[in-house]
Amino acid sequence: MNLKSFRIDNLQYCNWSKEIFQINNQAKLDAIHVTIAYHEDFNEVEKNINIWNKYFKEFKDLIFHGKTYKDIEKAHKEKKTAVFFGFQNCSPIGNNIGLVEEIHKLGIVFMQLTYNNQSLLATGCYEENDSGVTRMGKEVIKEMNKLGVVVDMSHSAEKSTLDAIKISSKPIAITHANPSFWFEAKRNKSNEILKALAESGGMIGLSLYPHHLKDKSNCTLESFCEMVAKTSDLIGIKHIGIGSDLCIGHPDSVVDWMRNGKWTKTKDYGEGSSSDVSFPKQPIWFEDARGFKNLEDGLKKVGFKESEVNDILGNNWYNFYRGINS
Amino acid sequence: MNLKSFRIDNLQYCNWSKEIFQINNQAKLDAIHVTIAYHEDFNEVEKNINIWNKYFKEFKDLIFHGKTYKDIEKAHKEKKTAVFFGFQNCSPIGNNIGLVEEIHKLGIVFMQLTYNNQSLLATGCYEENDSGVTRMGKEVIKEMNKLGVVVDMSHSAEKSTLDAIKISSKPIAITHANPSFWFEAKRNKSNEILKALAESGGMIGLSLYPHHLKDKSNCTLESFCEMVAKTSDLIGIKHIGIGSDLCIGHPDSVVDWMRNGKWTKTKDYGEGSSSDVSFPKQPIWFEDARGFKNLEDGLKKVGFKESEVNDILGNNWYNFYRGINS
Repeated sequence: MNLKSFRIDNLQYCNWSKEIFQINNQAKLDAIHVTIAYHEDFNEVEKNINIWNKYFKEFKDLIFHGKTYKDIEKAHKEKKTAVFFGFQNCSPIGNNIGLVEEIHKLGIVFMQLTYNNQSLLATGCYEENDSGVTRMGKEVIKEMNKLGVVVDMSHSAEKSTLDAIKISSKPIAITHANPSFWFEAKRNKSNEILKALAESGGMIGLSLYPHHLKDKSNCTLESFCEMVAKTSDLIGIKHIGIGSDLCIGHPDSVVDWMRNGKWTKTKDYGEGSSSDVSFPKQPIWFEDARGFKNLEDGLKKVGFKESEVNDILGNNWYNFYRGINS
Repeated sequence: MNLKSFRIDNLQYCNWSKEIFQINNQAKLDAIHVTIAYHEDFNEVEKNINIWNKYFKEFKDLIFHGKTYKDIEKAHKEKKTAVFFGFQNCSPIGNNIGLVEEIHKLGIVFMQLTYNNQSLLATGCYEENDSGVTRMGKEVIKEMNKLGVVVDMSHSAEKSTLDAIKISSKPIAITHANPSFWFEAKRNKSNEILKALAESGGMIGLSLYPHHLKDKSNCTLESFCEMVAKTSDLIGIKHIGIGSDLCIGHPDSVVDWMRNGKWTKTKDYGEGSSSDVSFPKQPIWFEDARGFKNLEDGLKKVGFKESEVNDILGNNWYNFYRGINS
């Protein structure tokens, strides 16, 4: 197997359409990890999966449901994109640990222990205080480890994330976030987390979502790639991938729903503000997955070798997927 | 209205039967607050209410559904027991603040923000760390205050309880617990909590559940009544009532379910242990609600006047119910 050129975007949440699947195909993405739950319960997730099953049927020349790393190889060979499912919250399992097995059967590969708020499992990064992984959280991590559902702490708070790294017997992932040393944001991660993550064999997917970028929508490709280089110096190149957090084509009502779910009657603006309620504008060099080509060029410019660029843009994630069920 | 002699037990969770309703009647209980959810979701609560509606029909000479303080007066007059509904957890509202209004419509008067574990609203007393009332918790308390659903922190951790007292614009309740100064247990409450509770107009229902009692099942009536006197000295008599936590007639599978719900695959023993999995044996002077007579005598013996005994055994809770919708 030629490992040189896998391309993986390990987080997208777009307003799915043939056009977007075509763009991902043009970008040569062998795999994407897509969000199918933010606040949904188990029944609502099943409905979302039904919608995906329709996409898989309708756009079978472009995509198929990815379940293991072998599907990444298959996609590469067939010039399609394998679509892996994940949750950005643990709402689908509610207070029932038995549902971890059920979501695994549905093909869920990643589950965040929290979105922005406190969950039954851990604390989200928007809470004032962080009590870490809870009693139920410890039990659920054990179950996820056993079944091969990856713990994702992208939206979790500091102590909770460090706890999860420690408690999980398998490497965890931060599928979409950036280092705080580059841009201080609630969603970005401390050096302590990044180091502990790498030491335990985990992966971070660097994000192209403007609220996680230095200078937001005006972030330059050069600045982003320099950040990648510094992150690589800090934790080693093998733990770095891309999780673009692309949210293409959604109306603003969707970002409003992502932030507010059903948990509040007072409007929450998340990473935005009352004067800035919209999805932010992508930087011009990453308006969609075709920006992977710009990343390729940019990473080479800051000194990465071709094999290293391939590691960052897909091969590291591919290796992580290989380890999930080992 | 003669206020002298209301008798209220503000927490019971029995294996309900005609016999138990008769015992409560013999004990002259004008009102009981009963638990109708530990881990249930909204649909399961509706089923539990259907069961209660059958009880109300079948045993209409003994009980009826209590909704406001006027039902306590009615029960007193008709020599029946008004049954008020409460939850020991917030599981029935899940992640949906809109359900607070729905549970209020169903006649729920009390809702604990947590059982023993972390919830979406606050931290339970069995968690290692306590992050206090969460973002959703703040919103839900506001909603409960607006509608007249009482915040109950009986099973919550220290900071969460202090937070709830501060955040709630209405007095809160600790329907069933004892002071830690008398017996140090995870479920009992610090002086700081008790004082803050009283200062804000809240109520504590002192518990007769052996795991909350000094010397557990061997606790003496005298020791219990001396504790009441000390609590009264500490926070004032007007904030003290009874919440016996009587769990009569259940098989041990019920306490196992209360402790484990569906959150863990590893057995949790809660206040018990692996060698002590059963419901504990009640002290001989409080085997059921007829023990209120013993409390009456015991409280007089430690120096309380008759009017004060009546305050503790029911009138204080009656006054609290009067304030709920004011």
